[in-house]
Amino acid sequence: MKGEKKNHFTVGIVDDVTNTSLPVGENIVTAGNSIISCKFWGLGSDGTVGANKNSCKIIGDNTDQYVQAYFQYDAKKSGGLTRSHLRFGHEPIRSSYYVTMADFVACHKQSYMHTFDIANEVKPGGTFLLNTHWKGEELEANLTNRTKRILAERKANFYTIDATGIAAEIGLGNRTSTVLQAAFFKLSGVLPIDKAEEYMKDAVVKTFSKKGEKIVNMNLAAIERGLTDAVKIEIPESWASLKDEVRTPDKKLPKYVREILIPMDRAEGDLLPVSTFNDYADGVMPIDAARFEKRGVADNVPVWDPSKCIGCNRCSLVCPHAAIRPFLFTETEAATAPLTCVTKKAVGKGFEALRYRIQVDPLDCQGCGSCANVCPAKEKALTMVPLESQLDEQKNWEHCLTLSEKVNPMSRFSAKGSQYEQPLYEFSGACPGCGETPYIKLLTQLFGDRMYAANATGCSQAYGFFAPTFPQTVTRRGFGPAFSNSLFENNAEFALGISLSVDQLREKTKMHARAAIETTKDQVLKAALQAWLDHGDENEHTVLLSDAVRVALENTDDNSEHVAYVKRRQDTLTKKAVWMIGGDGWAYDIGYGGLDHVMASGLDLNVLVLDNELYANTGGQSSKATPVGASVQFAAAGKGTPKKDLGLILSNYGYVYVAQVNLGANPEHTIKCLKEAAAYKGPSIVIAYAPCINHGVTKGMGRAMEEGKAATECGFWPLFHYNPNHEQAGKNPFVLDSGEPNGKLHEFMMGENRFASLTRTFPERAEILFAEAEEFTKRRYAKYKHLAGQDFPEGRAQERII
Amino acid sequence: MKGEKKNHFTVGIVDDVTNTSLPVGENIVTAGNSIISCKFWGLGSDGTVGANKNSCKIIGDNTDQYVQAYFQYDAKKSGGLTRSHLRFGHEPIRSSYYVTMADFVACHKQSYMHTFDIANEVKPGGTFLLNTHWKGEELEANLTNRTKRILAERKANFYTIDATGIAAEIGLGNRTSTVLQAAFFKLSGVLPIDKAEEYMKDAVVKTFSKKGEKIVNMNLAAIERGLTDAVKIEIPESWASLKDEVRTPDKKLPKYVREILIPMDRAEGDLLPVSTFNDYADGVMPIDAARFEKRGVADNVPVWDPSKCIGCNRCSLVCPHAAIRPFLFTETEAATAPLTCVTKKAVGKGFEALRYRIQVDPLDCQGCGSCANVCPAKEKALTMVPLESQLDEQKNWEHCLTLSEKVNPMSRFSAKGSQYEQPLYEFSGACPGCGETPYIKLLTQLFGDRMYAANATGCSQAYGFFAPTFPQTVTRRGFGPAFSNSLFENNAEFALGISLSVDQLREKTKMHARAAIETTKDQVLKAALQAWLDHGDENEHTVLLSDAVRVALENTDDNSEHVAYVKRRQDTLTKKAVWMIGGDGWAYDIGYGGLDHVMASGLDLNVLVLDNELYANTGGQSSKATPVGASVQFAAAGKGTPKKDLGLILSNYGYVYVAQVNLGANPEHTIKCLKEAAAYKGPSIVIAYAPCINHGVTKGMGRAMEEGKAATECGFWPLFHYNPNHEQAGKNPFVLDSGEPNGKLHEFMMGENRFASLTRTFPERAEILFAEAEEFTKRRYAKYKHLAGQDFPEGRAQERII
Repeated sequence: MKGEKKNHFTVGIVDDVTNTSLPVGENIVTAGNSIISCKFWGLGSDGTVGANKNSCKIIGDNTDQYVQAYFQYDAKKSGGLTRSHLRFGHEPIRSSYYVTMADFVACHKQSYMHTFDIANEVKPGGTFLLNTHWKGEELEANLTNRTKRILAERKANFYTIDATGIAAEIGLGNRTSTVLQAAFFKLSGVLPIDKAEEYMKDAVVKTFSKKGEKIVNMNLAAIERGLTDAVKIEIPESWASLKDEVRTPDKKLPKYVREILIPMDRAEGDLLPVSTFNDYADGVMPIDAARFEKRGVADNVPVWDPSKCIGCNRCSLVCPHAAIRPFLFTETEAATAPLTCVTKKAVGKGFEALRYRIQVDPLDCQGCGSCANVCPAKEKALTMVPLESQLDEQKNWEHCLTLSEKVNPMSRFSAKGSQYEQPLYEFSGACPGCGETPYIKLLTQLFGDRMYAANATGCSQAYGFFAPTFPQTVTRRGFGPAFSNSLFENNAEFALGISLSVDQLREKTKMHARAAIETTKDQVLKAALQAWLDHGDENEHTVLLSDAVRVALENTDDNSEHVAYVKRRQDTLTKKAVWMIGGDGWAYDIGYGGLDHVMASGLDLNVLVLDNELYANTGGQSSKATPVGASVQFAAAGKGTPKKDLGLILSNYGYVYVAQVNLGANPEHTIKCLKEAAAYKGPSIVIAYAPCINHGVTKGMGRAMEEGKAATECGFWPLFHYNPNHEQAGKNPFVLDSGEPNGKLHEFMMGENRFASLTRTFPERAEILFAEAEEFTKRRYAKYKHLAGQDFPEGRAQERII
Repeated sequence: MKGEKKNHFTVGIVDDVTNTSLPVGENIVTAGNSIISCKFWGLGSDGTVGANKNSCKIIGDNTDQYVQAYFQYDAKKSGGLTRSHLRFGHEPIRSSYYVTMADFVACHKQSYMHTFDIANEVKPGGTFLLNTHWKGEELEANLTNRTKRILAERKANFYTIDATGIAAEIGLGNRTSTVLQAAFFKLSGVLPIDKAEEYMKDAVVKTFSKKGEKIVNMNLAAIERGLTDAVKIEIPESWASLKDEVRTPDKKLPKYVREILIPMDRAEGDLLPVSTFNDYADGVMPIDAARFEKRGVADNVPVWDPSKCIGCNRCSLVCPHAAIRPFLFTETEAATAPLTCVTKKAVGKGFEALRYRIQVDPLDCQGCGSCANVCPAKEKALTMVPLESQLDEQKNWEHCLTLSEKVNPMSRFSAKGSQYEQPLYEFSGACPGCGETPYIKLLTQLFGDRMYAANATGCSQAYGFFAPTFPQTVTRRGFGPAFSNSLFENNAEFALGISLSVDQLREKTKMHARAAIETTKDQVLKAALQAWLDHGDENEHTVLLSDAVRVALENTDDNSEHVAYVKRRQDTLTKKAVWMIGGDGWAYDIGYGGLDHVMASGLDLNVLVLDNELYANTGGQSSKATPVGASVQFAAAGKGTPKKDLGLILSNYGYVYVAQVNLGANPEHTIKCLKEAAAYKGPSIVIAYAPCINHGVTKGMGRAMEEGKAATECGFWPLFHYNPNHEQAGKNPFVLDSGEPNGKLHEFMMGENRFASLTRTFPERAEILFAEAEEFTKRRYAKYKHLAGQDFPEGRAQERII
């Protein structure tokens, strides 16, 4: 068999979900005997998979061992679970199944010990490595009886290492993977340790040199700490006789949560019998379930200091996961709240007799720190502290959800007021610090209780449609956004179909309403129907006027044909806000032909483009939205052409509402534009700047809003809107909403690795492309200014008809 | 069986080519016995099919007869052959095959009598109707012996009618169909003639009332003349003993022409055995064959008056079929030319010792009259006269083609100079007066000997790829444009692939050329290769420098590896001009996503959009290029949205060369823009206004150029170009090339039935949409002026790299 070996390093990579950038379909070399099997439990964003691949490469390239690797992802973005199944051996590896009993098991994420049955995968006499800062009694207290019993019974070699602490100390932030890789080599014995150290260090130099010497040195330090800092835990004999905890889900939980969500979230979904799904045989799965997941994956979560809080709600606005929200209490509610659930006096018109609290949801928080970073108070009212210290806050969160419903004292169409609306998109699978989900969440706060969304594939599919949980939820009345997922190439057409059918149904109801007004003797119903016909299409009135009709229908004695029809189809009374949502890969590239066609139709549809300037979900390929000079997949030498100006292009139609917005730079502008887009009777598109982990923001994704602000201030992402309604009044429809670039474009670009890396890989080309970026930015702003300055002396003679 | 009849009128319409707007797939009701079968031979543009359908409807709707109809088209546009197969009867019709032996046969096109074996389809005792102005001896002289013998032998009832003359007299132009329909009813006896007259008149009122009373009255008059004006021809007994002509093709003709083209053109292609195609089993068919077709379908063709001609070549420039061209003679050639092949002194620098002649190709002319209409001479130098009077000119045409090749005394990049270049796109299947083919023809005169074209489906497919003839031809050296046909949805991508492969092959040749320069001792070859490397990419030098290399390769003794490679791949020496060509259905609609993507790539590719503002080939459906207020298929109530501004949209990239041109309005501008587009090192697009029979131009398609001129002058089609190279020099890249609208937009629109018909069908909406058109036109021009006025104070720091 040895003679057949051609390449020692053969990695079979097969993803069980779409969320990956990895090539699939390579051969899996499977093994006979004397195999060392390893299993790693990691977080999508912690570099576990990358380090595992690296380890395989080191072993495959430098020894005569065979290597097999399979990486198993869940559907969540970088905050999701990854499991690496690795095998090494001197004979070909022929095991075409998961590693479920391993010589070496590592848990890279401390909180996973509460959720998953990880120790159960350690072979008798095997090694278990846990990344944790728990020590002594704290460790003892945090491990489950089951874990302790298994480790003791199997006489496992149990090690801990505080890789998270070490990485932070060295300056690697939350990038723990190099420390843990070194510990793996140290403890697994796959290679002689001196050789392993040499190979690892070589690999670090090779991999990171283009990211700069500082990063190389930090990683070399991480290797050394990983080799030395793992601590062997002596397992007391008493652990062997502990009794497993009984983990029966609370009977009060919905059946779906008990029987499907919880097992799947424990990574035990494969064990469910088919009969469990009998109730969902038609494929319709319950939403409003994400709140039961309680992933608890954050290292640190915010803690609120009411004495410093200025009540701006900005923390809530920017949270990608809706895990921090303002709550309003009546005086009575405040007085009867749990002791730790403190409140402060709410201020402002309409807030009389109300008290205010910012409440964190620690177990749904992803720990990005965006809320704390964005806090504008003189002394920050939010501080990031370890998750465990805040677990009691979970009860306060649950309590806050039981408070009485309050009428929003402010307009929902303001940065502050919007946050008193329930977000109907919560706890999604998005990365910590995601720049996209704050927009979707905001959209549901503005229109969610009557919203139909057509979602293009891409990140918003991966984090928005991940079984068993979906981030869409409902108000207490049971209304929420209806999300449907489509493809890159047809999402606009898909939305058009939804919109046409919604309009047709509503037109039919209107026809019957008109007939009912002619015939009914019920004056209350008549008045309600008339008011609905007159103003029921207006965004600000449609819910109230539809409710009035519903009440009148409930109380009428008239059961004539037309009244009966309206009653039967009262679901069509409220005007639906149809939005299509997708990324730049959809809107600028693959779906652009359809988007253009639908926009050109002149029909009343709304578009939200979450523009992170690349195909993030598949690992960061170049799109036409990618800026000049960015080094991304398919444009590794830096994209040579500047970003496509989708907004300006669509504004050429003259009857399409267009806005380019940036939540980090100007939230009020973002909300104003979303409101105008929804109100405009015709096609509307809002293009939103969305920082992304693929940008390599040096400051980290917790600073995404700050980064967004810098993007607009330096002219990289100008704000504007084009409102065709202005024409009617003789005003220029094109309005430039951000100021002259502040000259810091280069500084901005150097703060993101997508640009900065090019100075190391292709320094000469970088110089040319960055000059091009400067030129492009300058000229684009000048063009916008020129367009904004155009005279529109006369109003239009008439409204447009389509 | 009678009881089963539900609808007497069932038309089965199946086209044998794509060129149709008709629904397909309806049931064909077939017949048993006592069937009247009819066959009509018509020209695609003469209304035969429409009239036949109308006759079927009249019979089906008003009698208890069954009707079967099948319409057979060739691939040519409106100048092509149509054959209608009609059957009527009192029992269901079950004949699922062509009518090849009919009770009634009509030939609607006089010249067809020279080409097709039409009389052979008349049953013994049947009726044959010929639309002709031939009478008496002229008739006798023009009918073939075979026709005469068959008519006599079968004792046919032979009638003639001068429908062409009658239609012209009444004011119907070349629309002969109503006259011929009436004659059909009169002679076929399918209906009692008084009934038939009543039904026809009703139908005319119903069909044409939206086109105005004048048209109704003309058609009513046409019916009356059709009923009275057919003349029965007494057939002399002597005809029965005539001997058929022998129609053996000239042995000097190419085999392909003799064996395939000629039988297919006689509508006898179905009779060819498979073995005839043995030589073409790989699917590659010969081009340069259209010139053998000699369709002779024009009623009238131009005659040239040298005394009035000012030598501007405008007639040649606008001819859609390349059937009129200027020729230059040496004094000797002039002296030895046939007597009727008169010339006049050529004037201007470079024309010394040359004589000039405009030569018509009568049998390839389609008779639109565009050349005569466009002639700018004080007294027109071209007059349209009946084809038969000009048949002798065919010999002069053939003679002119034998003249010695002349170096173009002028730059080919001028309206006049371009016409001294051989058109490499001739005698296409386009409609008479087509607004598109003059652009393609011109393109081949500018770049054709080194042009690769990717053609999107649409009209340019129908008239450009119609077996057995293709309009692409070659120079005497054998160089011509390589046309490949693709689809709506991928033509840009298709062209990109062609371009990339061409570039790769050329790069490889350059690599070997550089190596050859290093090693060769042949100084001539070295110099030639160096010059080619230095300037061989430039449009104006590439042919000459490549030829120099070819000569040097021919004469060198060096047969080293690198020299041998260059020699072997000398086909790659000349820089190819890659053009993608398509209509607005491709560029604005179905292929737009790909077009946008390819333009955005920044690669060096050229696009010509033939914008006739609708899907002409499939019968005139609305595209995003269709202007507001146009009543077309899918927008019968008038398109509500204005025309998409493709040029301005693409200019937003900043690195795409864009031009909007109009041959009728400004030929020099058209040529300048095509030249700049080809020269620009990056993506280029030229959007060309193309009047179309689907516009319903009241003046007729012979006035297409005049109509185009009016379109630009009234602001309907402004001219501009956007040249990114201007930026480098600190100039504004956007240049507006046409003047302020002259206020005659409404007049222009009323001169085209696509707009004018709306005032009759939806008068109120027409008013609104036409006001919108005025507004749009005004604002668009203002926007262009504003863009053209933008300051571009500084030059670019550097050239772009992609």
